[in-house]
Amino acid sequence: MADYAHIRSERDGETVTITMDRPKRRNSLSHEHLAELLAAFREAGDTDASGIVLAGTGPVFSAGHDFADVAARDLTGVRDLLRLCTELMDTVQSVPQVVVARVHGLATAAGCQLVGACDLAVAGESAGFALPGGKGGWFCHTPAVPVARNIGRKRLMEMALTGDVIDATTALDWGLVNRVVADDALDEAVADLLARATRGSRTSKALGKQTLYAQLGRPEQDAYAIALEVMAAASQLPAAREGMNAFLEKRHPDWTD
Amino acid sequence: MADYAHIRSERDGETVTITMDRPKRRNSLSHEHLAELLAAFREAGDTDASGIVLAGTGPVFSAGHDFADVAARDLTGVRDLLRLCTELMDTVQSVPQVVVARVHGLATAAGCQLVGACDLAVAGESAGFALPGGKGGWFCHTPAVPVARNIGRKRLMEMALTGDVIDATTALDWGLVNRVVADDALDEAVADLLARATRGSRTSKALGKQTLYAQLGRPEQDAYAIALEVMAAASQLPAAREGMNAFLEKRHPDWTD
Amino acid sequence: MADYAHIRSERDGETVTITMDRPKRRNSLSHEHLAELLAAFREAGDTDASGIVLAGTGPVFSAGHDFADVAARDLTGVRDLLRLCTELMDTVQSVPQVVVARVHGLATAAGCQLVGACDLAVAGESAGFALPGGKGGWFCHTPAVPVARNIGRKRLMEMALTGDVIDATTALDWGLVNRVVADDALDEAVADLLARATRGSRTSKALGKQTLYAQLGRPEQDAYAIALEVMAAASQLPAAREGMNAFLEKRHPDWTD
Repeated sequence: MADYAHIRSERDGETVTITMDRPKRRNSLSHEHLAELLAAFREAGDTDASGIVLAGTGPVFSAGHDFADVAARDLTGVRDLLRLCTELMDTVQSVPQVVVARVHGLATAAGCQLVGACDLAVAGESAGFALPGGKGGWFCHTPAVPVARNIGRKRLMEMALTGDVIDATTALDWGLVNRVVADDALDEAVADLLARATRGSRTSKALGKQTLYAQLGRPEQDAYAIALEVMAAASQLPAAREGMNAFLEKRHPDWTD
Repeated sequence: MADYAHIRSERDGETVTITMDRPKRRNSLSHEHLAELLAAFREAGDTDASGIVLAGTGPVFSAGHDFADVAARDLTGVRDLLRLCTELMDTVQSVPQVVVARVHGLATAAGCQLVGACDLAVAGESAGFALPGGKGGWFCHTPAVPVARNIGRKRLMEMALTGDVIDATTALDWGLVNRVVADDALDEAVADLLARATRGSRTSKALGKQTLYAQLGRPEQDAYAIALEVMAAASQLPAAREGMNAFLEKRHPDWTD
Repeated sequence: MADYAHIRSERDGETVTITMDRPKRRNSLSHEHLAELLAAFREAGDTDASGIVLAGTGPVFSAGHDFADVAARDLTGVRDLLRLCTELMDTVQSVPQVVVARVHGLATAAGCQLVGACDLAVAGESAGFALPGGKGGWFCHTPAVPVARNIGRKRLMEMALTGDVIDATTALDWGLVNRVVADDALDEAVADLLARATRGSRTSKALGKQTLYAQLGRPEQDAYAIALEVMAAASQLPAAREGMNAFLEKRHPDWTD
């Protein structure tokens, strides 16, 4: 993978791990940091890897936007920054790979948004999640978008209005993360969940993931209109044929894509 | 009720029980099986029964689509099959009766979709729920539609991407089912929930159920636009008048419809 | 605050408490009662208070619409009543203050709807929640709108179809309320949650709350389209500038709005 200044992107077997690596700045998401994350996700998305892990180094997962960067910007400048950030969130959901957030320490504001945007999330016991703009001067408007699509409304309102941190266990209970484990078991738990989530045909999985995001949040009949057409078309692809034939012939499938 | 080849439909008092009865094929949903279920739901919907139970015989509730049926079809053929399946799901939500899924054993793929589509669901301890297409070659695009509208997004992603089975207790915790009981207490628990859910005026209930599905998944103000007009109109129906008058006259209501 | 006949509205420090005070009628929401609540929320919304508490006196929080009032109305009359009621719910979500429901005893039908519509809710152990129209003759169509946007679908269906009461602990588990405490600790718990939810800039919070309701329930990309533009514009307001500068200068912020 390419070299970056604020992050690292490394491939190991089937997995690309993208690590926010600006610990002294608490992995805050400056324009340069966001641009590198976006480039790394696009680069990983173009590989034949089956999974992507998003991680961070240092005391926290990510503290969200970098106020030093934001404070210097006028309206157009902030809008550009937020468009870049939103493009990153959209790319996380658009790449064909399964994306798992590996969360240790605090994930706040746009850092919490990243967890909400990833397909799956595993939290260490040290993890905490917050939308702190609610108790400051700049509300977490965009971070609340994916968080609101993972947890219930009263809980979203509490996070967004109070800015308080919820711990890993609460995040699991509310549905913001899929697993909570001891911090020293994080790598193992992420690898296990990713292994489970990347079985089967890669083409089928990519189409599946992308179609899920296309149908979520729509009235049920609109969602069916999307899912039905995709599923019919997908039935004619080699992966679906191989899966069905292997089942009928009582043999293991052999995925070519 | 009519005679069917793959299913049974029986009326007992106020309840029609529709039973998937092709245990050797694990109640897989071939075109013929789906067509019979659709016919049976329409038939039951036209009766004056107040409730419908959807059940299955044999080791599992339903294994979803029948690969032997799907594998033989071209694009148009699969599309026809999925349109029939989607029409069944829509009919389950359109009939005036309250529909309860009685789930024992595995409910997978379109079998899990049926549970998601029913108004209410009671699971035996043997029940399990999965969207296995995620670990195969043909993703569970349409089954994910109603499941996603019952459980949180990270949980939906885990089910859809891993294909793993969740047990009955997890399904209850996540909101996919309303009750979990010992398998030998299933019939009693289904009857109890259905009795509670079918009290009151039938006309009012039918309008209520249908309007719920019309407003769910829409922005709140759009939902109010629907619910307000229906509720105003409903206030002038005999059932509403009888209910209010009985309350004001401190007597039991006598529903004529 | 103004004098009202059915309610009380009192300001104490930063908080306006609006109390439904028709205990003999179980705080049922006649046209006059709704009109007073709407006027009181508008009046409170125009003050510089930071929070609003909605409470009730007597044995229950609110029993919903007043059947004596409804039964006398024709279609246009009921429609006017429901439009007033919906305008109240919309106003609760539109005022710049954080609104917390303080729920003791039963909150049923439109009373339960009020809890669903408030930003946050604290329940005493005596609280119960129900959509009883489902077991009567006039279905709780509009009350189900905000309740459905707080809890899962199977749970909403159970409440709406059975009309059964869920207790405070279940409401907490399902996400309809944020806290459950002993009844004699209700005032303290409401004050604590409101204090947490009203920290920071008031202008930022008001914009935040209103934008949340604007983006919820929409497809994720539509939500981003709203949240991104608001967040970019908000970055140029004095509150955001003060918050960022205080953070960068390592001092406490001094909010002027």
